[in-house]
Amino acid sequence: MSLKDVIDKGDKVLLYCNGKKFLVSVEPGRVLHTHIGMINLDEIIGKRYGDLITTHIGERVYLLRPNLADYVLNVKRRTQIVYPKDIGIILLLGRVGPGSIVVEGGSGSGALTGVLAYMVRPNGKVFSYEVREEFLKLAKRNVEKLGVSDYVIFKHKDITKGIDERNIDTIILDIAAPWLVVEHAAKALKGGGYFISLSPTVDQVEKTVGELRKYNFIDISVLETFVRYWKIKEGESRPLTFMVGHTEFIVFARKVFEIEG
Amino acid sequence: MSLKDVIDKGDKVLLYCNGKKFLVSVEPGRVLHTHIGMINLDEIIGKRYGDLITTHIGERVYLLRPNLADYVLNVKRRTQIVYPKDIGIILLLGRVGPGSIVVEGGSGSGALTGVLAYMVRPNGKVFSYEVREEFLKLAKRNVEKLGVSDYVIFKHKDITKGIDERNIDTIILDIAAPWLVVEHAAKALKGGGYFISLSPTVDQVEKTVGELRKYNFIDISVLETFVRYWKIKEGESRPLTFMVGHTEFIVFARKVFEIEG
Amino acid sequence: MSLKDVIDKGDKVLLYCNGKKFLVSVEPGRVLHTHIGMINLDEIIGKRYGDLITTHIGERVYLLRPNLADYVLNVKRRTQIVYPKDIGIILLLGRVGPGSIVVEGGSGSGALTGVLAYMVRPNGKVFSYEVREEFLKLAKRNVEKLGVSDYVIFKHKDITKGIDERNIDTIILDIAAPWLVVEHAAKALKGGGYFISLSPTVDQVEKTVGELRKYNFIDISVLETFVRYWKIKEGESRPLTFMVGHTEFIVFARKVFEIEG
Amino acid sequence: MSLKDVIDKGDKVLLYCNGKKFLVSVEPGRVLHTHIGMINLDEIIGKRYGDLITTHIGERVYLLRPNLADYVLNVKRRTQIVYPKDIGIILLLGRVGPGSIVVEGGSGSGALTGVLAYMVRPNGKVFSYEVREEFLKLAKRNVEKLGVSDYVIFKHKDITKGIDERNIDTIILDIAAPWLVVEHAAKALKGGGYFISLSPTVDQVEKTVGELRKYNFIDISVLETFVRYWKIKEGESRPLTFMVGHTEFIVFARKVFEIEG
Repeated sequence: MSLKDVIDKGDKVLLYCNGKKFLVSVEPGRVLHTHIGMINLDEIIGKRYGDLITTHIGERVYLLRPNLADYVLNVKRRTQIVYPKDIGIILLLGRVGPGSIVVEGGSGSGALTGVLAYMVRPNGKVFSYEVREEFLKLAKRNVEKLGVSDYVIFKHKDITKGIDERNIDTIILDIAAPWLVVEHAAKALKGGGYFISLSPTVDQVEKTVGELRKYNFIDISVLETFVRYWKIKEGESRPLTFMVGHTEFIVFARKVFEIEG
Repeated sequence: MSLKDVIDKGDKVLLYCNGKKFLVSVEPGRVLHTHIGMINLDEIIGKRYGDLITTHIGERVYLLRPNLADYVLNVKRRTQIVYPKDIGIILLLGRVGPGSIVVEGGSGSGALTGVLAYMVRPNGKVFSYEVREEFLKLAKRNVEKLGVSDYVIFKHKDITKGIDERNIDTIILDIAAPWLVVEHAAKALKGGGYFISLSPTVDQVEKTVGELRKYNFIDISVLETFVRYWKIKEGESRPLTFMVGHTEFIVFARKVFEIEG
Repeated sequence: MSLKDVIDKGDKVLLYCNGKKFLVSVEPGRVLHTHIGMINLDEIIGKRYGDLITTHIGERVYLLRPNLADYVLNVKRRTQIVYPKDIGIILLLGRVGPGSIVVEGGSGSGALTGVLAYMVRPNGKVFSYEVREEFLKLAKRNVEKLGVSDYVIFKHKDITKGIDERNIDTIILDIAAPWLVVEHAAKALKGGGYFISLSPTVDQVEKTVGELRKYNFIDISVLETFVRYWKIKEGESRPLTFMVGHTEFIVFARKVFEIEG
Repeated sequence: MSLKDVIDKGDKVLLYCNGKKFLVSVEPGRVLHTHIGMINLDEIIGKRYGDLITTHIGERVYLLRPNLADYVLNVKRRTQIVYPKDIGIILLLGRVGPGSIVVEGGSGSGALTGVLAYMVRPNGKVFSYEVREEFLKLAKRNVEKLGVSDYVIFKHKDITKGIDERNIDTIILDIAAPWLVVEHAAKALKGGGYFISLSPTVDQVEKTVGELRKYNFIDISVLETFVRYWKIKEGESRPLTFMVGHTEFIVFARKVFEIEG
């Protein structure tokens, strides 16, 4: 069961033209007006991913299959998204893969939710808590776009007030006050389960780590990740001038049953 | 189908003692001799992940569930492994998840192979090429340790000579001369498929990108990733003094059916 | 002989208003029109550095003394300037201080020239080569602004064609083809003298290092520097989102009299 | 007045042998025992910097002139030194050059003191405060080695208790509690004077910035610097595997006469 070859209605397609990329939903009857001309989406139904088409003024456009980074960077958003560089290492630290039972708080714009859901298929589940109703709606819509709604149970609840689930593999937090969830996470996680939290400030990290030390968590570590892009051309290769210098600190810990006295 | 709660024979357990971690296979009858005393592995069968035991001299040891970073960093290796920070972003760029059909070259020590196999379960597959027999054996053993051998087809072949498969979703290369595989990858990948290559030197990257530009690849990008760890303690938080400054450059590209003239 | 206390005509003053900074020359009779109102520069003559004035519409402006980073970042420029982070380490590697005899090629916009001249006072000298006449003019004007013209001898010459001086302490290159200067540098530098070259691409660095290995140079090293800024506020401290990811690679070497065979 | 050509007794010479470097004082009659054989220091008196000699077993050794980074990295030390990457940018931010009047606290091992003294020659001065007597002795000895003792006035005093000097250009702090010096610095600095402080932890930075905001300081900024080294060889160029991930955060601010209400 590999990825689809042919573009169908409802699919998400990444249009690529002269280095610019945009992610669109293939809705029948829709005509896309872009700075390089019009594209009738009906005409791309039945084309293959990888095909080259032209706009009404003859500009060439490639029909690409979005990867998970495209998805994350292009979701409609109302919050700061979690960056692909951070999501990637979270998957490894939190052992998020097929079958994982994950609790996420909050849903935010749903970018991380979608990737988690994609990874836990077909027999895992993501329980995603969000207290703000407008974000919950947005997250649901974004997860739908990735076609993985079946693997997410959205909960309109404040995760700092408690976690309903038990025996959870991994808990991932991207909220303002993750330290308020540590006690609940200690109850919800199974033995050896993974606690992961993302926060932009050092103060949030200190408070979260402080709480983790009070409860049944060990192997606490904190890290930040960076990505630097290069321009590569023979004789001219060099890193790009600007880079993202900070997104979020990642806190990691493991739940155990008792803590040495 | 979440992760197991109870430790069984054959399981991989991460022993954690005073900040030191080591990954062991729970083989019945085996007694582990460590600098903090002996541990009879028979005694941990039936314990829960997250439990605390003591060595014969009373040192306390936690029984943890390895995550994918533990697996990668602890495989028996004869080559430089691919680091978790790099594997993470590769998963997102290469859309590697349940159902993906992936070609890997070469298997190396099998650390990356194992993570890929873990992620493509239960209906995907990893075809892993390795020309050196001793590495092939090692990779097989390491993938077995993660319990994901069913999802890997090892091939004792030189991937620079050709790729047997067609209609592949993602190709991931960690070999000395990835540019020799570009032409084969152009044939093996499906439209919109993902090409990813890891190389430590700028020269390898230039050669690979040069070849990608000759064949049907677009959206070529090159990046490097960094991780910085922090010590967190109220009033004393600071980054650690040393960090890894370089592992490998990551080359990414997408396969299309034709290239603009 | 510390820095001046009182602002005089001809001085360079850094105006600071609500986090914005601009560097101006105090020319008598000049009225500065800014987005926060007019400033009559006559009125700031006789004020102290550190004083607070108001524009004609009552906006508050501090009169500051530019440091060398302000100078570098505010010179009128036609080329990419050398960044303060790179100049700083060059001073230490090249032992540039009072009395140093330095050859620079090319002058570029004169930002680096000015800092070098500032540092070699009062008994050192900077010989600055520039082949493009318009840059030479610009560099002279910028060095004048820092008040250190007496310590620079500008030469309208192509440094890749040869260096006139001998027994030089330090040579600093920021030109497109520094490798063409290595042979000349080997003659011009005194024993133990310092060769430093700045280049944006890996290829330029390779070519330069290759030449250094052919001539009497040892202890060749190559490095790049980064600066990351932080927002600091109790409970909200975090690195800024964006940073400069690349300026130039720095090549360093030492001249000796003979090379082991 | 450029650097000396010929090695004299009392000079500091950087011995370079197969990539290893060590800094020695040329004391007459001294014989150096190294892992590559004996070197009679009498025999190097009168040699030129840049000359090649041999040890008694025929190993080749270059006689080099230390730069300021060599000095900093080779001082006999009892504390963490300030790294060249940080000193470099401090010189530019603090406008430390010939004639500067600088207050430093504390002297520590004297590595930074020496570089500051080197730069303020011949008509500037460094007032260096140190409360611990054994460090004061060490710093004096290290500054002497650089031959710049005439430009430093060491003070066996606790700088957190007060600064005797007034009308200072630049204050540079590398002590555990720099925030205790902010009020004194506000009095000691001239208008537009530069405050610079180095601290390893975020908490120290927050406290220092908090104090700076209470007194007459503006344009407060905080940064950290990184250096990454490369191995350069045609076809094999790549960054080195390990790098220093953290030394100290640098706090910068400017003193003004009044603060907006």
